[in-house]
Amino acid sequence: MLTVITYDVNTETAEGRRRLRKVARHCVNYGQRVQNSVFECVADAATMVKIKADLIAMMGEDDSLRFYDLGNNYAGKIEHYGSHETYEAEGFLSL
Amino acid sequence: MLTVITYDVNTETAEGRRRLRKVARHCVNYGQRVQNSVFECVADAATMVKIKADLIAMMGEDDSLRFYDLGNNYAGKIEHYGSHETYEAEGFLSL
Repeated sequence: MLTVITYDVNTETAEGRRRLRKVARHCVNYGQRVQNSVFECVADAATMVKIKADLIAMMGEDDSLRFYDLGNNYAGKIEHYGSHETYEAEGFLSL
Repeated sequence: MLTVITYDVNTETAEGRRRLRKVARHCVNYGQRVQNSVFECVADAATMVKIKADLIAMMGEDDSLRFYDLGNNYAGKIEHYGSHETYEAEGFLSL
């Protein structure tokens, strides 16, 4: 199953940026970063429960974390427009 | 059907912030802003085609715009964690 994870955090603070980096590092173990704060993770249901618990433990109290379950047949449910399909915070693209 | 719209734009520039405001104003006509750059819109397929075309016309060349189709039975597919379920850039919450 594919789960879209969106993480809203105030990146004007060093602590916020640190949390976003930490969340991103965890998410990319299971999928890809597609926007600055949007991740697409492919995992079975049991693994997804663990990912969710890990991310909830990482978040700050003013942050917002959302999960969207796109199921197993997700190929036709995602559309992208813009200059790049994947995002690398370090400045290069994984093509 | 519910469509999740994620819009990645550089908000360090006035032009980027302006485009984000414009995209947000358009999306909230059809749904709600749930994070700074994440929107959930409920519309039929024909209306969604129009929304997509409108947003694509608004975006800048370095921006990223993604659409996730959650279908009609979306209630159990969304999970939220954090301090607020909806987001208002103007500083108040729609509860």
